[in-house]
Amino acid sequence: MKLSNLLGQRFKEKPAECKLDSHVFLVRGGYIKQVGEGIFSMFMPMKRITKKIENIIREEMDAIGGQEVMFPVVMPATLWEESGRYSAVGSELLRCQDRGGSKLVLGMTHEEAAVHLARNTASSYINFPFMIYQIQTKFRDEPRSRGGLIRVREFTMKDAYSFHTSQQDLEDYYKKCHKAYENIFARVGVPEVISVQSDSGMMGGKVAHEFMLVTDAGEDKLVVCQNEECDFRANMEIAECVFENEPQQAADLTKVHTPNTKTIDDICKLLNVTPDKTAKAVIFLKKESLEPVIVFIRGDLDVNDIKLRNFLHEEVIPDDNTTETGITYGFVGPINLTAKATVLFDSSLKGLTNLVCGANEVDYHYTGFNPERDLDTTIEYHDLSKAFEGCICPKCRKKTIRLCRGIEVGNIFQLGTKYTESMNMQYIDKDGNLQNPIMGCYGIGVGRLAASVCEVRHDDYGPIWPISIAPWHVHICAIRADDPQVSEVANNIYNELQKNHIEVIFDDRDVRPGVMFNDADLLGVPVRVTVSPKTLKRNAVEVVFRDKSFSQDFPTSSASADITALVNSLLS
Amino acid sequence: MKLSNLLGQRFKEKPAECKLDSHVFLVRGGYIKQVGEGIFSMFMPMKRITKKIENIIREEMDAIGGQEVMFPVVMPATLWEESGRYSAVGSELLRCQDRGGSKLVLGMTHEEAAVHLARNTASSYINFPFMIYQIQTKFRDEPRSRGGLIRVREFTMKDAYSFHTSQQDLEDYYKKCHKAYENIFARVGVPEVISVQSDSGMMGGKVAHEFMLVTDAGEDKLVVCQNEECDFRANMEIAECVFENEPQQAADLTKVHTPNTKTIDDICKLLNVTPDKTAKAVIFLKKESLEPVIVFIRGDLDVNDIKLRNFLHEEVIPDDNTTETGITYGFVGPINLTAKATVLFDSSLKGLTNLVCGANEVDYHYTGFNPERDLDTTIEYHDLSKAFEGCICPKCRKKTIRLCRGIEVGNIFQLGTKYTESMNMQYIDKDGNLQNPIMGCYGIGVGRLAASVCEVRHDDYGPIWPISIAPWHVHICAIRADDPQVSEVANNIYNELQKNHIEVIFDDRDVRPGVMFNDADLLGVPVRVTVSPKTLKRNAVEVVFRDKSFSQDFPTSSASADITALVNSLLS
Repeated sequence: MKLSNLLGQRFKEKPAECKLDSHVFLVRGGYIKQVGEGIFSMFMPMKRITKKIENIIREEMDAIGGQEVMFPVVMPATLWEESGRYSAVGSELLRCQDRGGSKLVLGMTHEEAAVHLARNTASSYINFPFMIYQIQTKFRDEPRSRGGLIRVREFTMKDAYSFHTSQQDLEDYYKKCHKAYENIFARVGVPEVISVQSDSGMMGGKVAHEFMLVTDAGEDKLVVCQNEECDFRANMEIAECVFENEPQQAADLTKVHTPNTKTIDDICKLLNVTPDKTAKAVIFLKKESLEPVIVFIRGDLDVNDIKLRNFLHEEVIPDDNTTETGITYGFVGPINLTAKATVLFDSSLKGLTNLVCGANEVDYHYTGFNPERDLDTTIEYHDLSKAFEGCICPKCRKKTIRLCRGIEVGNIFQLGTKYTESMNMQYIDKDGNLQNPIMGCYGIGVGRLAASVCEVRHDDYGPIWPISIAPWHVHICAIRADDPQVSEVANNIYNELQKNHIEVIFDDRDVRPGVMFNDADLLGVPVRVTVSPKTLKRNAVEVVFRDKSFSQDFPTSSASADITALVNSLLS
Repeated sequence: MKLSNLLGQRFKEKPAECKLDSHVFLVRGGYIKQVGEGIFSMFMPMKRITKKIENIIREEMDAIGGQEVMFPVVMPATLWEESGRYSAVGSELLRCQDRGGSKLVLGMTHEEAAVHLARNTASSYINFPFMIYQIQTKFRDEPRSRGGLIRVREFTMKDAYSFHTSQQDLEDYYKKCHKAYENIFARVGVPEVISVQSDSGMMGGKVAHEFMLVTDAGEDKLVVCQNEECDFRANMEIAECVFENEPQQAADLTKVHTPNTKTIDDICKLLNVTPDKTAKAVIFLKKESLEPVIVFIRGDLDVNDIKLRNFLHEEVIPDDNTTETGITYGFVGPINLTAKATVLFDSSLKGLTNLVCGANEVDYHYTGFNPERDLDTTIEYHDLSKAFEGCICPKCRKKTIRLCRGIEVGNIFQLGTKYTESMNMQYIDKDGNLQNPIMGCYGIGVGRLAASVCEVRHDDYGPIWPISIAPWHVHICAIRADDPQVSEVANNIYNELQKNHIEVIFDDRDVRPGVMFNDADLLGVPVRVTVSPKTLKRNAVEVVFRDKSFSQDFPTSSASADITALVNSLLS
């Protein structure tokens, strides 16, 4: 490809709307163009990158026995009504009607389509297990698309679905797929991707992992154990919190006058205690019934509302104090609590002594609150708090938890029989009985993965693409293309490399070296070959790596062969 | 791939809903499964076929300098409002709204997206020409999907858009693309595809060609000159009709009483003339104004409403006789025609003498009507009739026109500046003036092409896939897979062929030979290798071609190498 023919503009100015580095470089480098909110077109370099990622994914999916299939983007609503998700999923699911008034949905995930394809087809246990996957366009009507290709509404996704006759078989396959994902991320050039336990959300199922590229640009909060011998990693959404509280000698329960103390900070200041010596009440409402839910938790911690939702098996919303609840806001405590509410205690309070808590009376708190002593009922503690820096690892039990951020580049779920039951997919087992197959599903967002690689593989001047997914292998810069010798040597190398199946972008433009090098930086091709009157005086071309790890003169006479050998060694 | 693991059922019974052979075999062979009206999922064999077709297309597009890009499936309506097509296109365009109430459309074609991508990017004449293309999912809300993958609502399409600074440059590129299309159809195994002149419909532009696979299963009517020295071929929609009428001696104009003669047949019977001796009136209404349009045409011919629409520059609908028009239905003729209507004469009447025509009076006709003599005004004749078997070729002027049917597998359009003008895409020309680029566009439906190949490459038992797009190269049937020797030889060949990069499907199931061979016929793989106790007695495996053109025993000892050589010779 000659750069003079390549559609796409490269420029210096950082676009105002771009917050993430990957977004900046993908726009500035002529990779993508925004068409609408969360909707992008891709220029040739981006399309080449995503095709390479897709092929790597395809090879790894095929290697674990995957069958590539194709599901529709547009599906009849009836299919989603069968699984119950037509009504269960919110407005992320784009709904529309065709000319005949039939309801349609745009696929944001394809469990229903996968069951539809496999149902009545795999009807005997001998047809199992199998895995089908596709690489295709999806649409998810995100309320807040952001960061270029990091969070979009329309995206290309590899989604895979496996079907099994036993939980053990699913778990074995799940491990295989986990390994295949590790291979994929390593091959696209980000071996540092970690897998974390995660919430299965609207997908259903119990066990789920997300593959996370750790970077401050990520919007997911991760909980990672720093103990080298421990492999605990979880999404903040579900990371278990454990506490080992040493009981102190119990003080007396005392009601104290605490005027104008509506917040934990106020009361701590007044009573000269730290927040971790308080039992804070955090109040939610159940989304449907608006019934209040009061969570008592150590005053320095936050309630994890995903954990709360999963515990209650229903959505909760923050209490905005406008609903009539009978609660004495600002002074809520576990003693003499008369408001009609679901009352829960977080594990952080277990074993704590001598706490400050509200007295359910305006301007009054208790000190010396000892839960086990001061409440009539046996208290059940539940894991409802958000993990925090330095908290105890639930696996190795050391205080080695660190928080970080990551971009989710893939996920895998053990779905169970949620879809095969609701959509009535059955097979006849060895004993002649009808059974629902057990499913797993496995996703990777292709465009987001490409952008994520850029997010962690760039310098101040542009992306540094790993050669496995780089739009081209070699970028030839012909400085002073009007010089016949430069032009001849550069064209010669260009033609020879192409004959050797090396992918080359050739900057044949008559532009200043600065412009040429800036553009080369923005295109991020791993190997750059500069041909100029200066290098030719040395009877050489200059070969440098985009990541600056290599810089050498290659003799003009053997340049094509030497560059080919170099690229092939990088590719292997 | 082992057939025992392949998802998809093959069966004997012809599904009632399938009319076309390709539909029958794609369903019976486990290639596709219908998800909704005109919406299908693909099993692995179909996905493999379409991927191969896509790669052939990609190679040919790249060879003519195409840059593969990616446009969105879902686009903001505002983009289509810019070109005017949001309102101009009917309900084929699926419209919907996102969670914020913004209007969206599903791409049925991507001229708008192509201009959006190129606009502000290619701003100088030195950036031209260029061609961008994508291979992607489209949705067109067809009122009548039919024939499996032949006419669907959701489909994968290669659509390409070229941009030029002169009409000559467009025409040169158009020819290149025409040649690339010929290469594509030859490479996917249907070199007999012909190109015909066609109507450009809602795309705009003047010159357009469709690539047609001639088959009775096609729904397009084609007009093809049979003269071997002539290359005239056109879609019936636009095929020009020429007439060379020899005037006879003029008879007198005579009004005759013709009771109960409402049709051409009635009047011909009564007056004992053939329909070609009559001037028939065919009445339409302009779609918007409902103003009548009367076309006089030779009695044995039909009006081509596409030609009529193109002539009037507006849509027409058949007159259903319910609108108040003042027309004397059944007796409409050119003489004393007082009804307020647009009156047109088809070229078929030019030079005809002594015709029968209506007298605009109930139960009366004229005989001896001689248009030039009997009408006051000079008559303008227009090409408004449908071509017919044996009519005069507009190119070579022989009566060698034949009608046939075809499936449109591709199309190319010279769009002109319709989109670049309406969407304000401009570049600065050599002289510093702002200009709108001239566009061409070029489409191929991938799934339809696959089904079309099946339509013309099958026997009574299933598809006969050309090796270039076959789901696999070799199909191994292990008859009596329970026989250890059969199993060993078959597995050995399977493994060896895979090592040699031959694509193999291996029927390792313990099923009867009849079932095995039926399934092999349905999968249509070009080379079949049968291993059975019988062939092993001959120290051989049997190698046959799906199209029956080859059948030979290969010695067991060298089978893998021999089959590899055979397949490679077929592929080259």
